[in-house]
Amino acid sequence: MSRDRTRGRRTERRERRLEARATGVPKTAQPVSRFQVYEVLNDEELEKIHQASMEILSSIGIDFYDEEALSILREHGADVRGETVFFDPGLVEEYVAKAPSQFTQLARNPDNNVIIGGKHLCFAPVYGPPFVIDLDRGRREARLVDFQDFIKLAYMNPYMHHSGGTIVEPTDRPVDTRHLDMVYSHIKYSDKAFMGSVMSAENAADSVRMAEIVFGAEEIREQPALISLINISSPRRLDDRMLGALKTYARARQATIITPFILSGAMAPVSVAGTLAQQNAEALAGIIFAQMCEAGTPVVYGSFQTNIDLQSGSPVFGSPESQLALLASAQLARRYNLPFRSGGMFSSSKIADAQAAYESVQVMLPTIMAPVNFVLHAAGWLEGGLTAGYEKFVLDCELLGMYHTFLKGIDLSEEGMAMESLRTVPPGSHHLGTPHTMRHFRTAFYRAELFDTRPFEQWQEEGAEDAYKRANGKFKALLKEYEPPQLDEAIDEELQEFVERRSKKLMIEH
Amino acid sequence: MSRDRTRGRRTERRERRLEARATGVPKTAQPVSRFQVYEVLNDEELEKIHQASMEILSSIGIDFYDEEALSILREHGADVRGETVFFDPGLVEEYVAKAPSQFTQLARNPDNNVIIGGKHLCFAPVYGPPFVIDLDRGRREARLVDFQDFIKLAYMNPYMHHSGGTIVEPTDRPVDTRHLDMVYSHIKYSDKAFMGSVMSAENAADSVRMAEIVFGAEEIREQPALISLINISSPRRLDDRMLGALKTYARARQATIITPFILSGAMAPVSVAGTLAQQNAEALAGIIFAQMCEAGTPVVYGSFQTNIDLQSGSPVFGSPESQLALLASAQLARRYNLPFRSGGMFSSSKIADAQAAYESVQVMLPTIMAPVNFVLHAAGWLEGGLTAGYEKFVLDCELLGMYHTFLKGIDLSEEGMAMESLRTVPPGSHHLGTPHTMRHFRTAFYRAELFDTRPFEQWQEEGAEDAYKRANGKFKALLKEYEPPQLDEAIDEELQEFVERRSKKLMIEH
Repeated sequence: MSRDRTRGRRTERRERRLEARATGVPKTAQPVSRFQVYEVLNDEELEKIHQASMEILSSIGIDFYDEEALSILREHGADVRGETVFFDPGLVEEYVAKAPSQFTQLARNPDNNVIIGGKHLCFAPVYGPPFVIDLDRGRREARLVDFQDFIKLAYMNPYMHHSGGTIVEPTDRPVDTRHLDMVYSHIKYSDKAFMGSVMSAENAADSVRMAEIVFGAEEIREQPALISLINISSPRRLDDRMLGALKTYARARQATIITPFILSGAMAPVSVAGTLAQQNAEALAGIIFAQMCEAGTPVVYGSFQTNIDLQSGSPVFGSPESQLALLASAQLARRYNLPFRSGGMFSSSKIADAQAAYESVQVMLPTIMAPVNFVLHAAGWLEGGLTAGYEKFVLDCELLGMYHTFLKGIDLSEEGMAMESLRTVPPGSHHLGTPHTMRHFRTAFYRAELFDTRPFEQWQEEGAEDAYKRANGKFKALLKEYEPPQLDEAIDEELQEFVERRSKKLMIEH
Repeated sequence: MSRDRTRGRRTERRERRLEARATGVPKTAQPVSRFQVYEVLNDEELEKIHQASMEILSSIGIDFYDEEALSILREHGADVRGETVFFDPGLVEEYVAKAPSQFTQLARNPDNNVIIGGKHLCFAPVYGPPFVIDLDRGRREARLVDFQDFIKLAYMNPYMHHSGGTIVEPTDRPVDTRHLDMVYSHIKYSDKAFMGSVMSAENAADSVRMAEIVFGAEEIREQPALISLINISSPRRLDDRMLGALKTYARARQATIITPFILSGAMAPVSVAGTLAQQNAEALAGIIFAQMCEAGTPVVYGSFQTNIDLQSGSPVFGSPESQLALLASAQLARRYNLPFRSGGMFSSSKIADAQAAYESVQVMLPTIMAPVNFVLHAAGWLEGGLTAGYEKFVLDCELLGMYHTFLKGIDLSEEGMAMESLRTVPPGSHHLGTPHTMRHFRTAFYRAELFDTRPFEQWQEEGAEDAYKRANGKFKALLKEYEPPQLDEAIDEELQEFVERRSKKLMIEH
């Protein structure tokens, strides 16, 4: 293909994407924290965790269950013995330094491009539940229609910056081709950035190809159009499926989030510090490997660290141990100058009750204060991640709105100080009708629609609904109002053809 | 009274108090934050708020509705014009500097003495609701038996450091003598520190007298046995009842919390910065006045700042504006080297639902991270403070336990690093039975009893209870188990005689 033809195509695609801006949904602006970071380790303590993980990397080793991966690691200077790989600190430093500290992920609507890194925060929906729940239909296996409903809810919410990935598992679709349905749905029903499939190298390649159709093959090598979740099988293992996906994405310069998934007491010791050391070694091993595949490919340092209940073995969310782990992990990511993923609105609760809300904010507020750059599971998570709740989703979104206001900080301009009002309103009087109040009446305070402030008697007369019930009305109203964003017909057709062709092939092969 | 007799009595009282230690309730240890403070203003911004409040104090003025107070202020160098008082910055600095930065409040059980200031946190129950609610009996007017029930719940909880004050209004008791019932109940049903009445100078004097009976008159001048809540009637007013109580407590060297009660948009401008400037001026005015009454008397800088919903006029809790206000107020208190009171488990919700929990943690976690020294309303608050919830109380207490663990930080000792386990557990295996896990099995993680982590099916089969329902069972079980702490019979008799005598007198007078 000649250079000119390429440029022509690229321009054309850019124009199509720019056209997509004209939608009725409010623009999603990422918050940027203007505050200091919140730290739970001093420099010496942070160094102690770092050193312990260097011991793990250099002397204890990490297993890679993929022949090609082992070759790549060997070629780039790692010490490979069988399937176990040892990294000396110099090698760690060298390859970690190749990763960018910040990058931009493309969205179909360029207004919704997201910056991952620095003090930017990006909120994405829950990821992975095989079940969904709502008050009308109860708990049930998730289907593609649920998957699409959650895309719509995320698309319509101005505080959700990202369309996410496997928001729920569309269990009514064949396992082998499900990834095609999911990626296509993200493109079709939203214009926000989305995630790729990580089930295998092949699925990852399909995700990349679909992103190329939408954004252009060269464009997505310059700035990634996919961000994908590579979980480490703790302790100290990267399995072949995840490595297959990781290689594919790294070589395509698509972003990956390298996350050891750790419940202290099961996959790691019952101590926060020991678990941090293990997590750090595992995350760095994945990040180094990605950089060996393709230097400079965007990677995110991921942490999913909580603990089990030692009496039942169940995972616990919102625990103080998980708060400490999150804040310390953010410090580790910053130490290596890497974008950071953690947090979310986690809960063990089966329904959107007080427990769900207590636990969710227990994790989410440290997430905001850390701050975390990429916040997966920012809405909808229930039952330890087994269920996505429709009501929980819209309730969590109320909090996301609050965090946008919080992160802006305090307005200390002359107008913000309001000295004229302070001078003129007499003692014992009120500010309800002052010129200052009238000027800011509509925008002064964030308003959480689902949080009731009516007097008790009025609340009782009007049905005494709890937050769960109010959220039920809200999500149904939103889904009724939904209108899809524009999608260029030629692109849509090309995508549909691709999905059809690949689906047929995959159904025959498997 | 001779010195020797005084010493004899004092020793005797100390001994009696020491005997009170032998109870079945776990010792309540205050958490001390080992983390940095979380700040939302830089130094320059903080100075801007300070300067604005200096303008209010020196040029706009604060009203004091009490003749004697105005005389005291005039005598100590304030510029008094009518009922409006102006303070120049030098005078502010001089008198604020007289207040101690930290003090210890005595508890009947000396193990439960609390430190107010520094990086210590002290949790106290909800204060003030005229209503109570629980799932069995619904919402109703609070009675003395409710008041006593909440004292018992606070007494039994190892994470609640304080017995509080007017936990609920005992509306079945006569208004004029209610304070006697409340103070007596705190002493009788708990051995934790408690608060005095602020309804009038007379009620304050009764509270002091009862504290003297328990602790000794000279003892409580050395270390306060009462801490009491003086609210400023914003904007810029101190009324006669509050000033009466403030004078009494200050002269008796009993601690007071000077708190402007402000809803932005009503008692202050619709901006956080303007409200902070007003709050700061008002709090400092009260603190200066207390120091003019009695130099060195313990005072706490209080902040109760949130906003109204501008559409309905109702107060809003858990708002991002209130989070910013809380964190900035903590910075102001630190600027003046004063202990700080703010925060609590606030909500507008009528019941212990998701809204109640979201809003509560939204305020409580910044409270922990600020940190706040005296946390009133740390459990039980519902409906904007109009109702105390039994279930809400025990649910909130679960979080208080979590905060104790959080504030301890990460154990980085050799045992905490768990390197031996990290070295020996092979990839893909687990840490469930390691020697390290076995050593820490019972204490490794904080366990929230009311937060369910069972699998969905089991939870459903066992009744599908939400957190609200589980909390209902919990508070009733606790009240059944309750056993009162020891109280010296002679002291109890003296208290009862005092209450009887004063009650008769007050009933005749009013």
